[in-house]
Amino acid sequence: MATKDLVSVTSETDQKEVAQVVRDNRLLAVPVLDAQRRMVGIVTVDDIVDVVEEQASRDIQNIGGMEALDTPYMHTSILEMVRKRAGWLAILFVGEMFTATAMGFFEAEIAKAVVLALFLPLIISSGGNSGSQATSLIIQAMALGDVKLRDWFRVIRRELISGVALGVILGAIGMTRIFVWQKVFHTYGAHTSILALTIFLALIGVVTFGTLAGSMLPFILRRLGLNPASASAPFVATLVDVTGLIIYFTIANFVMLRQLGLS
Amino acid sequence: MATKDLVSVTSETDQKEVAQVVRDNRLLAVPVLDAQRRMVGIVTVDDIVDVVEEQASRDIQNIGGMEALDTPYMHTSILEMVRKRAGWLAILFVGEMFTATAMGFFEAEIAKAVVLALFLPLIISSGGNSGSQATSLIIQAMALGDVKLRDWFRVIRRELISGVALGVILGAIGMTRIFVWQKVFHTYGAHTSILALTIFLALIGVVTFGTLAGSMLPFILRRLGLNPASASAPFVATLVDVTGLIIYFTIANFVMLRQLGLS
Repeated sequence: MATKDLVSVTSETDQKEVAQVVRDNRLLAVPVLDAQRRMVGIVTVDDIVDVVEEQASRDIQNIGGMEALDTPYMHTSILEMVRKRAGWLAILFVGEMFTATAMGFFEAEIAKAVVLALFLPLIISSGGNSGSQATSLIIQAMALGDVKLRDWFRVIRRELISGVALGVILGAIGMTRIFVWQKVFHTYGAHTSILALTIFLALIGVVTFGTLAGSMLPFILRRLGLNPASASAPFVATLVDVTGLIIYFTIANFVMLRQLGLS
Repeated sequence: MATKDLVSVTSETDQKEVAQVVRDNRLLAVPVLDAQRRMVGIVTVDDIVDVVEEQASRDIQNIGGMEALDTPYMHTSILEMVRKRAGWLAILFVGEMFTATAMGFFEAEIAKAVVLALFLPLIISSGGNSGSQATSLIIQAMALGDVKLRDWFRVIRRELISGVALGVILGAIGMTRIFVWQKVFHTYGAHTSILALTIFLALIGVVTFGTLAGSMLPFILRRLGLNPASASAPFVATLVDVTGLIIYFTIANFVMLRQLGLS
């Protein structure tokens, strides 16, 4: 039985299960039976290699944030490729539009302390990066069977601790950067310490939230019966961008603007 | 010969080549010869399944932006996991610091028109998203052998056209959003049209650049003898964030601030 048939007669989940059985028992082939247990075909181990590779291919394209191509890159027309790519990009774009809305609420804060805007890309991208990292880690752990749906609470606990630790590390680097720049270029003036504290706390908050959100997303998708690998890195980044800037400006408002009598 | 031995005696590239030969010729096993062409071992097709899966696993973790774990998720200590994750996150963080530096140069522009800051996350994330999409597409096409190193110029041409088309699509959505918000909430006042034009042009510029940079990165990595799959989505996003905001503010400066007599 050729791979083509295997693809057409079974669902993706079935294929994965067959692949698992063949691999775990180191079989060279498995028979395919009908409801009367009569043999109707055979799946050989080289079919499995194709299935595993095809699956990985699709997962990688999903993680990058696009529909899988049906044809090789060079043989896909540019129009078809733009069509496949535009859909996901447009969805992400519409999601990301909430950042413009959210930032509208903090327009007054930015006008009072433009320096806050300077650190915005740094802060929100750190949330996005830690989120995509956590997501791809969990997707992979799920694909390998290391993490099951029922493990969600243990994963939350682990990711909470990891998130805070990663936030503290990035926060420390951020603070150091601000103090060094102040020392060398006198960039931030009298408010250097309070700015450094704001950035430090914001990074802990944003990275912890990003890590938690990123690690839980594959669980939510799987719970909804969707492929956890459709939690693409850009999707996580978009989700975390909106919440990240709310966390950032809220912390800035409390720590910095109050302190400076600007809020 | 168990996979362990296969892993220890051959490089990753060798493994991939052996996997390719076994797959293409639908072999069940290949002999391993020493320099005197004496048979010293055998690689069976089930070893290949493991290699393909292991490879995909590593690629997925790389794309997500982290060192691959050596042990299953649940059995990796939190300390070890933080160590594996912090390295990449810190590198990305240091790269992303250039956004703060670059934004410093546009501090005056932001102070003059805070509305520009509101769209910043939207603009730069669109560049990052289109970049990670292009990267994962090319990585996968390279892994499947659809795209070779010598195809780089054809890929540039295809991605340039795709990038402009995707930029126009996102730009049109962005413009529509601004006009609708203005109509409904009167958010942007008298300068709505000029803001919409700025956002439209900036999106075309940033998405085209993101797409080109994202698609070329795997070529550059492979040319340098590195694994193209180490071009993680977060890495591309970081690269494109810095250039994206420079493109954005430069266009804003020309189109909007000059027009409004603010520059």
